[in-house]
Amino acid sequence: MGTEPLKVALLGAGVVGSEVVRLLTEQADDLTARIGAPLQLVGVGVRRTGVDRGRWIDPALVTDDLNELVTGRGADIVVEVMGGIEPARELILDAFRSGASVVTANKALLAQRGAELHQACDAAGVDLYFEASVAGAIPLLRPLRESLVGDRVQRVLGIVNGTTNYILTRMDESGASYDDALAEAQELGYAEKPDPSADVDGHDAAAKAAIIASLAFHSRVTLDDVFCEGISAITPHDIKAARDSGHVVKLLAVAERSPDGRAINVRVHPAMVPEHHPLAAVREAYNAVFVESDAAGQLMFYGPGAGGAPTASAVVGDIVAVARNRISGGHGPRESAYAALPVLPVDTSLTRYYIALDLTDKAGVLAGVAAAFAQHDVSIETLRQDGHGDDATLQIVTHEATEQALAATCMTLRSLDSVRQITSMMRVVGE
Amino acid sequence: MGTEPLKVALLGAGVVGSEVVRLLTEQADDLTARIGAPLQLVGVGVRRTGVDRGRWIDPALVTDDLNELVTGRGADIVVEVMGGIEPARELILDAFRSGASVVTANKALLAQRGAELHQACDAAGVDLYFEASVAGAIPLLRPLRESLVGDRVQRVLGIVNGTTNYILTRMDESGASYDDALAEAQELGYAEKPDPSADVDGHDAAAKAAIIASLAFHSRVTLDDVFCEGISAITPHDIKAARDSGHVVKLLAVAERSPDGRAINVRVHPAMVPEHHPLAAVREAYNAVFVESDAAGQLMFYGPGAGGAPTASAVVGDIVAVARNRISGGHGPRESAYAALPVLPVDTSLTRYYIALDLTDKAGVLAGVAAAFAQHDVSIETLRQDGHGDDATLQIVTHEATEQALAATCMTLRSLDSVRQITSMMRVVGE
Repeated sequence: MGTEPLKVALLGAGVVGSEVVRLLTEQADDLTARIGAPLQLVGVGVRRTGVDRGRWIDPALVTDDLNELVTGRGADIVVEVMGGIEPARELILDAFRSGASVVTANKALLAQRGAELHQACDAAGVDLYFEASVAGAIPLLRPLRESLVGDRVQRVLGIVNGTTNYILTRMDESGASYDDALAEAQELGYAEKPDPSADVDGHDAAAKAAIIASLAFHSRVTLDDVFCEGISAITPHDIKAARDSGHVVKLLAVAERSPDGRAINVRVHPAMVPEHHPLAAVREAYNAVFVESDAAGQLMFYGPGAGGAPTASAVVGDIVAVARNRISGGHGPRESAYAALPVLPVDTSLTRYYIALDLTDKAGVLAGVAAAFAQHDVSIETLRQDGHGDDATLQIVTHEATEQALAATCMTLRSLDSVRQITSMMRVVGE
Repeated sequence: MGTEPLKVALLGAGVVGSEVVRLLTEQADDLTARIGAPLQLVGVGVRRTGVDRGRWIDPALVTDDLNELVTGRGADIVVEVMGGIEPARELILDAFRSGASVVTANKALLAQRGAELHQACDAAGVDLYFEASVAGAIPLLRPLRESLVGDRVQRVLGIVNGTTNYILTRMDESGASYDDALAEAQELGYAEKPDPSADVDGHDAAAKAAIIASLAFHSRVTLDDVFCEGISAITPHDIKAARDSGHVVKLLAVAERSPDGRAINVRVHPAMVPEHHPLAAVREAYNAVFVESDAAGQLMFYGPGAGGAPTASAVVGDIVAVARNRISGGHGPRESAYAALPVLPVDTSLTRYYIALDLTDKAGVLAGVAAAFAQHDVSIETLRQDGHGDDATLQIVTHEATEQALAATCMTLRSLDSVRQITSMMRVVGE
């Protein structure tokens, strides 16, 4: 075990980058003890120099020559927290080519170009760690890659976007409208201004779903494989209907094996979760990932999904792991895409549905509605009718059915004279 | 990377042992791919031969010569799931001496003789992994040892005993008495018959608290250091008082830094947890561990705390990690007791308290009660008086105070003419 320092090059000096430098500085003695050698920061790469980077970053280390930083200073470990696809992708590939291991928090890059990065990493015989790319500080990827390695994951359900969880929590707890809750989230800095679409439309969650699905099912899943529906259409009526039927509305990332086990479904959409399910208790901007596996059963990992310090904690955990691997001459777990399960189109995925209808006062209305479900082979689990005459409403929860069958059922329902409108329609997930 | 098989010797063929063999058999191809070499089971050690061990264990591999199994068959990895202190301790030390790495689920052994095992492991340059010893399948020790390595843990709160959590959940949800809930837990096999004391008196949780505290604070903590109070004195009145004040009663393992950061408190006792706290949603026999750290913030790990398959999943995850370390020629993280923080006696630990009093109809009663708290420097956070005359009750939640000050306050309260009795008294944890 040498005492030669391991050289660390940091790309990015924003909130996360500064916190990484703070942890490396403040915890230097502890980290040296854990790794067996000190870490030496050899440079901090930024797009623009001449900006104040705060008290933790030594101005002498700051450079905008990113390529020289990655390839010209003998870096053992390159830490990429700059975000975006380019130049991050090129720089990571350069790092691998010069023999450095890489720690990254870049979910977009991994979800879109993960295969290319993993292959280059393997070819170079180094490490690519990315715990911080999903669910901030929550140790999730390491348990999936290492702890559950002898197990078989059947399903992963994740609340992986703090912004949308904050908005839905506000709507649930204060009865706020979507627009008011979004405005509040923007005020607090949880949602982007002026354009919150990356969060509320589910794209951020979809990138994380792709990364989680890849690891959980040892298959390559990219952003393009993930069906994605956001929360902007959720009404206070939906939230109340959920509560009245013992559920909470959450934006879920779902990755699951098909019934025959030979393919997977990966999707992001709002869903009603039973109040007693552990995910229902995840409030505010917190994230949580619920894993169902054959042997381990039901596990959940909970914590802050974003923020400079939590993300930096995950990055530093990865730096230590990568550093230890370099000193022992080994490397961490490789990408395992050996299962190579195909991703099925969303219309084949199975889920339970909640549907609420406004009825007109007609004879035989229930029979007509029931026939519409039967016609498309959708089985009704529970049915509740409230009110009379033109005030009558019907709430139905189905057994599992395909998205396709549900869409067809709704078409038929809308064509019925006795159905005034479908007032809520939402997937029901979790048991 | 060789293709020579790695030899595994298994000690124990009970529920966990059988499940380990099942996973090693069923997942053999996957495990070989992950490790880079196949695993070969070279023997299964039992106390008594001639017993049917089920379909997964080849009778030809079964032996009661445990010493020969550990030292005479060239084992690379010894898996100890037999439990108890001896002969498990001797066999693990023998395994280290013959150069094998060890995976164990033995919490009692680790909590009582951990230091000796870690030292022997270090001296032999091999690995000792023990994820399954705390909270079954929940990946907890790996995150603490590896993911949070660059962070600073302030406090760990754990629901680490499924039996007591089941009993408390029943009491909360059905209003059952402690005795009835215990009988139900025994009926379902969650609690031992006839003597459930290891669970209900908190000893099992205390062993796990010692292991968690050791890892979280890089210090040596043994079972003897852990203050321990069980749940058998909890009444339906306590449970209702908790609900009425927005709390749920849980048996918590608490490990926390003292305010100056230079020592730790480790204890197991029932506590009121706020209904909105993530631990409050942990029901039935599930376990969860809530970690508060400087950078990562609040994390929680949730899952089944016991059971053959979940525990086996954790054991196999460790086998894979240890196997990979052997192939790469390295080893995993060492025991880190470098911080060597002392464990403080429980009467110095700080906590908030809930106290309910029955009052007699006297003038100036509130003033007298308030003076009793003030006399011992215990500050009152909230106070609520219900009823009149001889039916009056008082519910008080204090700010943080030492156990010592609280005990003294209660002595004074009992001496007051205006206080008929203290009807509930419980620590309040989490906010």
